[in-house]
Amino acid sequence: MSDFRAPPSVEQAVVRRALDEDLGLLGDLTSTAIVPADAQGVGSITTRKAGVLAGTSAATEAFRQVDARVALDWHATDGTRITEGAELAKVEGATRSILVAERTALNLLCHLSGVATLTARYVEAIVGTNARIRDTRKTLPGLRALEKAAVRAGGGFNHRESLSDAVLIKDNHLTYLSLRDAVDQARARWPGRVVEVECDTLDQVAEAKTVAPDLVLLDNMTPVHVADRRRHPCGLGPGGGVGGVTLDSARGYAEAGADFISVGAVTHSAPALDIGLDLKVY
Amino acid sequence: MSDFRAPPSVEQAVVRRALDEDLGLLGDLTSTAIVPADAQGVGSITTRKAGVLAGTSAATEAFRQVDARVALDWHATDGTRITEGAELAKVEGATRSILVAERTALNLLCHLSGVATLTARYVEAIVGTNARIRDTRKTLPGLRALEKAAVRAGGGFNHRESLSDAVLIKDNHLTYLSLRDAVDQARARWPGRVVEVECDTLDQVAEAKTVAPDLVLLDNMTPVHVADRRRHPCGLGPGGGVGGVTLDSARGYAEAGADFISVGAVTHSAPALDIGLDLKVY
Amino acid sequence: MSDFRAPPSVEQAVVRRALDEDLGLLGDLTSTAIVPADAQGVGSITTRKAGVLAGTSAATEAFRQVDARVALDWHATDGTRITEGAELAKVEGATRSILVAERTALNLLCHLSGVATLTARYVEAIVGTNARIRDTRKTLPGLRALEKAAVRAGGGFNHRESLSDAVLIKDNHLTYLSLRDAVDQARARWPGRVVEVECDTLDQVAEAKTVAPDLVLLDNMTPVHVADRRRHPCGLGPGGGVGGVTLDSARGYAEAGADFISVGAVTHSAPALDIGLDLKVY
Amino acid sequence: MSDFRAPPSVEQAVVRRALDEDLGLLGDLTSTAIVPADAQGVGSITTRKAGVLAGTSAATEAFRQVDARVALDWHATDGTRITEGAELAKVEGATRSILVAERTALNLLCHLSGVATLTARYVEAIVGTNARIRDTRKTLPGLRALEKAAVRAGGGFNHRESLSDAVLIKDNHLTYLSLRDAVDQARARWPGRVVEVECDTLDQVAEAKTVAPDLVLLDNMTPVHVADRRRHPCGLGPGGGVGGVTLDSARGYAEAGADFISVGAVTHSAPALDIGLDLKVY
Amino acid sequence: MSDFRAPPSVEQAVVRRALDEDLGLLGDLTSTAIVPADAQGVGSITTRKAGVLAGTSAATEAFRQVDARVALDWHATDGTRITEGAELAKVEGATRSILVAERTALNLLCHLSGVATLTARYVEAIVGTNARIRDTRKTLPGLRALEKAAVRAGGGFNHRESLSDAVLIKDNHLTYLSLRDAVDQARARWPGRVVEVECDTLDQVAEAKTVAPDLVLLDNMTPVHVADRRRHPCGLGPGGGVGGVTLDSARGYAEAGADFISVGAVTHSAPALDIGLDLKVY
Amino acid sequence: MSDFRAPPSVEQAVVRRALDEDLGLLGDLTSTAIVPADAQGVGSITTRKAGVLAGTSAATEAFRQVDARVALDWHATDGTRITEGAELAKVEGATRSILVAERTALNLLCHLSGVATLTARYVEAIVGTNARIRDTRKTLPGLRALEKAAVRAGGGFNHRESLSDAVLIKDNHLTYLSLRDAVDQARARWPGRVVEVECDTLDQVAEAKTVAPDLVLLDNMTPVHVADRRRHPCGLGPGGGVGGVTLDSARGYAEAGADFISVGAVTHSAPALDIGLDLKVY
Repeated sequence: MSDFRAPPSVEQAVVRRALDEDLGLLGDLTSTAIVPADAQGVGSITTRKAGVLAGTSAATEAFRQVDARVALDWHATDGTRITEGAELAKVEGATRSILVAERTALNLLCHLSGVATLTARYVEAIVGTNARIRDTRKTLPGLRALEKAAVRAGGGFNHRESLSDAVLIKDNHLTYLSLRDAVDQARARWPGRVVEVECDTLDQVAEAKTVAPDLVLLDNMTPVHVADRRRHPCGLGPGGGVGGVTLDSARGYAEAGADFISVGAVTHSAPALDIGLDLKVY
Repeated sequence: MSDFRAPPSVEQAVVRRALDEDLGLLGDLTSTAIVPADAQGVGSITTRKAGVLAGTSAATEAFRQVDARVALDWHATDGTRITEGAELAKVEGATRSILVAERTALNLLCHLSGVATLTARYVEAIVGTNARIRDTRKTLPGLRALEKAAVRAGGGFNHRESLSDAVLIKDNHLTYLSLRDAVDQARARWPGRVVEVECDTLDQVAEAKTVAPDLVLLDNMTPVHVADRRRHPCGLGPGGGVGGVTLDSARGYAEAGADFISVGAVTHSAPALDIGLDLKVY
Repeated sequence: MSDFRAPPSVEQAVVRRALDEDLGLLGDLTSTAIVPADAQGVGSITTRKAGVLAGTSAATEAFRQVDARVALDWHATDGTRITEGAELAKVEGATRSILVAERTALNLLCHLSGVATLTARYVEAIVGTNARIRDTRKTLPGLRALEKAAVRAGGGFNHRESLSDAVLIKDNHLTYLSLRDAVDQARARWPGRVVEVECDTLDQVAEAKTVAPDLVLLDNMTPVHVADRRRHPCGLGPGGGVGGVTLDSARGYAEAGADFISVGAVTHSAPALDIGLDLKVY
Repeated sequence: MSDFRAPPSVEQAVVRRALDEDLGLLGDLTSTAIVPADAQGVGSITTRKAGVLAGTSAATEAFRQVDARVALDWHATDGTRITEGAELAKVEGATRSILVAERTALNLLCHLSGVATLTARYVEAIVGTNARIRDTRKTLPGLRALEKAAVRAGGGFNHRESLSDAVLIKDNHLTYLSLRDAVDQARARWPGRVVEVECDTLDQVAEAKTVAPDLVLLDNMTPVHVADRRRHPCGLGPGGGVGGVTLDSARGYAEAGADFISVGAVTHSAPALDIGLDLKVY
Repeated sequence: MSDFRAPPSVEQAVVRRALDEDLGLLGDLTSTAIVPADAQGVGSITTRKAGVLAGTSAATEAFRQVDARVALDWHATDGTRITEGAELAKVEGATRSILVAERTALNLLCHLSGVATLTARYVEAIVGTNARIRDTRKTLPGLRALEKAAVRAGGGFNHRESLSDAVLIKDNHLTYLSLRDAVDQARARWPGRVVEVECDTLDQVAEAKTVAPDLVLLDNMTPVHVADRRRHPCGLGPGGGVGGVTLDSARGYAEAGADFISVGAVTHSAPALDIGLDLKVY
Repeated sequence: MSDFRAPPSVEQAVVRRALDEDLGLLGDLTSTAIVPADAQGVGSITTRKAGVLAGTSAATEAFRQVDARVALDWHATDGTRITEGAELAKVEGATRSILVAERTALNLLCHLSGVATLTARYVEAIVGTNARIRDTRKTLPGLRALEKAAVRAGGGFNHRESLSDAVLIKDNHLTYLSLRDAVDQARARWPGRVVEVECDTLDQVAEAKTVAPDLVLLDNMTPVHVADRRRHPCGLGPGGGVGGVTLDSARGYAEAGADFISVGAVTHSAPALDIGLDLKVY
């Protein structure tokens, strides 16, 4: 299993749903009407734009579920930078099977490579700094595991997988008690887990310093504030991230010393990378 | 049931998967540690960018699945143009429940409103012509029904829901037989169903005219070709669409007389519309 | 819960699958295009042929899953003999919802009432005897629980629910060992469970008498053989059934003393009972 | 993939449910008690009545899910006319596995071949005319995709797969607006899709002619009305179907010029075709 | 299929759920970070306590679902008595795959072998008598089929698989009618099925004798009562069991003549048998 | 939502599976045969042994899924210490419904209260120290979320929910690289996440001190070693846990300064707490 891959059973379930959507109750009307049942074909999966590849195992799974005898030969792996016009894989098998699986495989490949590609652009924007690009929980329903794998393929890192793996205290939680009490309660209830705090104001940052969360996430602040935060070596924990950052502003924060830069856009707004399948039949 | 809504059972399943992703096995660590179990809150779902609303019933379903006693009061319906900063809905109920459902509800709302908003931009680009914007099968796995509903909310129209509801003959299918034979076979196998033909060249268009498909989809052609196609009233069926069109080029095709303009981007590359939830607690 | 009803969760799952089949990804194109979203209607579910009613709770569930606000008022319960033209229920609610649920509800009602009706005809054929009509495992995939409930509604009785609830030794099992050894092994492995033996020949019946199974099922025999079997009070257990019987031949076997008459046709070949829904809208 | 087969993933799900029903929690009590674990057998799947074969891939899937090492060798394919007493396939493998899968495989084979056989009888009844036999949405819950494939195997054609792939306007929809407005609204909402109209009276037919739906479905009419309809070449679209037709009356309608004859009975009332499995063990 | 195995599709579903629980959305963080993707390993599954083995096919399925290329070589089968420190199986394949499947496989193996081991202790306690140890419906949710198979592996026998396969009349049912009427109604409603009666008092036993259920289950009684019951050869059916028995008291009941001894503890309170996996990597 | 409750959708799915297991295809034979359909009853859920309560919402869900009109009135909440013979809840509704749901509700309640009770015994054993009892991934398949909630109800704390939420380096991982490199790679791949190291020897502990994991888990060591480890304030991170501890040995480790004591037994070997339902009917 590649580091850039979601758990296989999640992948299988996503592909199954996508095929169910695309085959309906009657299957592929066009292929069954026009393509001879015994026709064999060779397809070429080709990039139409440069980017970073992700989703190859999901695409493979789509062909496998339709017809286990279709053979895929990938020339690149997830995480690879791909150039426009490059052949990524050869697909060989029954023409009907290739045509039936094509759209599902490409939808996965184009979306996940889109996520990896946008992630990689952010990673490039901060190259040479110590900051890391990190995803969020702003993922598309049912696709989180695959999108988070694609973020890794693009050189990014995964923040929380769910509400269930780390504590993250935000403004909304602080109506009932002080930041100090909130951190204390979180540590008491979930000892041994990461506790992060999101701060909107400099006052909150000052308070956070005194309670030593594992990470302070700065929201709506400028690189100056980030740099300022770094002058408090006494305590903001192992790192500090920044939300709401764009491709243009990322470098400023990274250079100011942010450890993590969270980017929701890499999962919720990544345009598909254009990848197609050209079929040759015999 | 609104016209702009996916079948409820599909919606329920999508929400269930999203909540399963986001709650993991331990649920929301932060809320259970910090927010009193009996705390009540009022949330305000607010736009942070102008756009077109979609996904309200999916968002409602997210709150309902978490806690049926949470009350939502929507001030706008799917398909409504929403301005920046407007309150879309009030959410009222247990604070923990609101916080648990928040991200799932917003992920759906932001993505689907993103789809509707991008669709609406294409629709505006061709306003005043007879052309219609149409989606494709390039949807995100597991989300097709909801995305196609969002396309309708944005003023667009749905092309095929799957491989199973209409015949669409492309180049890949024509290796084995002529276009004429392909159309004949499709009509013989699936009588009474729509048969469309995608043409890449003018020669194909000329041939298509003689076999009278219900629709000719022109690929990689200029508005001039579209206009030219219209001078053959004898036969291209009720309409003719154009693929691979951008926001800039759409109007040219529409004015040249295209009946449909297919846009894959509205589902595979729509950026999320920024919508947030602000919570007030008592 | 009525005796004539399948476990509710099975019923819910069957209805969910049927609705998923019938709504596809776009829902009911016709209703959403033509019927106003706020239109209300009253439907009348009416028999078009006489028979025995079954499946009312499944039909109710179909309306409930589409729209919980649709109200059903049944005038008859499962197991009731219904005359041609009688109104079985009133349905009231949003017209769109009624139209969307109609076919799923009727498909269930017509099939299950068909099963109950055919069962009842067999039951009538043997009225006044001590024999009972019994179903088999020859049910339609996914519908066994509902069909077996419909058999009960028709006055029949359920034989095995699955391979898992009783032992039934047939010819195919006897290649490896004698009938005596087979019964002994079955009693040893699954003590306290019913052990039945199916006999094709009189010699087998004679042998079966010596091993005392709980039931001997006679296959391919005449009523004379059944009567003959009854002259051996020493041992065929509490009863003896007969397979492969028709509506015409059933009474002969019953009068000869068969305790059970198994009929595969009541589940695998029952024609649908014609039941329709007439809608009045305001 | 054969034209006569449902999408494989649907088939797999149907078989899974059927096996779950038949194996319960303890599995096959009889086989495990009596048949040696290492016994091998050869089975012969044989017709006991003549008909048209369907469901072979579903039956194969049943054996495969129970034990992938069981080998099936089919001598006939879906859509083949089979004679009484013919061997359809040889099954070879562990005796326990064959016995466990037997009933599930046969239930599928007998029902689907029953559907194909009844369809074929209707097709024969109109042989030599231009009419086609078409199925309806009156299918058994959970089995629509497989039944519709069986209809194709029997020489029939598929009408709508669901409410979601074409518009069909019936009386119930016309309470709110005129037929003309209904067709206009349907064309406006779902452009490029088939719009059919069902007419109960000659007045409706006359009105339908003026609005040019793609198909007029005549309900409760005689062949004379069908013929009459054909004298209006100006408008009833590419075809015209007739509902509620029997094996006896079909030919009259076909000769009168009906393009399609819809028959609900082929899916909701087809008696099972008798097919059995005879096992030889070594 | 072994007699000691649950239906394969149930087993597959249990394993799938366990892996989904254990892999989350990101998979195995540790292996993917530290273990080279191409590293191969050999694991040894070893007992750390003596007991009776069960669950081998479920454990095998766990490895198979993670990576079908992992090879398992079992040296013992379900139902085998295993000594402390014995190697049960060799596992060979990709190290990452072995580590990912390890916990799921062991959780199944340890729990099911725990059930088999506790069952075997009860079986030993009554060795030499005619009594049999039997399980109950007090199983852990979702694991009943596997636990009942493990009971068989431990030498026990299965009582009801569910509420659906036999009648068991208890005190709670007798508020509405007499025991005689209850048995009569049960026999009338479910003819041919086993009817058991649970008695708490000697008066009930006396009454039960007159209605001849297939089995009388004595509750809260001493061996003396059991022996007494045996002095009534006239009719308690094929046997009589005893509830609420411990390892210490079992033999007394068995020697007094109980046919079955039901033990809830073998499924609801069996401690896990300690089995581990030691990995050697190259 | 209580802190001691699993995510509701997980709970619903567990209950659904348990009811499917227990109702089979025919439902509750006994109740439908004997208990009048309209009979109402009041049940009393009562402890038969003292312990700690858990699983009340799962038990409630069992009644709800069977019949939403059954009313439960709980007198205690999860996490409460309950005495022998105390009434925990009153159940009121249709007698059939109560009897059908009873076993499923009790199976959940008894198992989860068993987990909570055993956890509480460990917690008591170390009372007054700073150590905390923590669960493991040794949970029963499909029940992890509910069991981990029960551990919290018993006063314990949750360690990892899955392989996916924290890094835990064990011996098996260290074949390929040194502990230092392993920790470095883990921190590099999954920055911001907890990294724990399990040590079997004092040499490993010494090495671990130099790489500063968030937690060192000591395996197979005595309290003396734990105390020794504490004399190295320079580096073992926020805490250190101990594996393989019993009720007798726990206090020694806790007093020696262990921060966490991991106990697999609380989930894999907790005996059921005896809780029953007594029904009164009118």
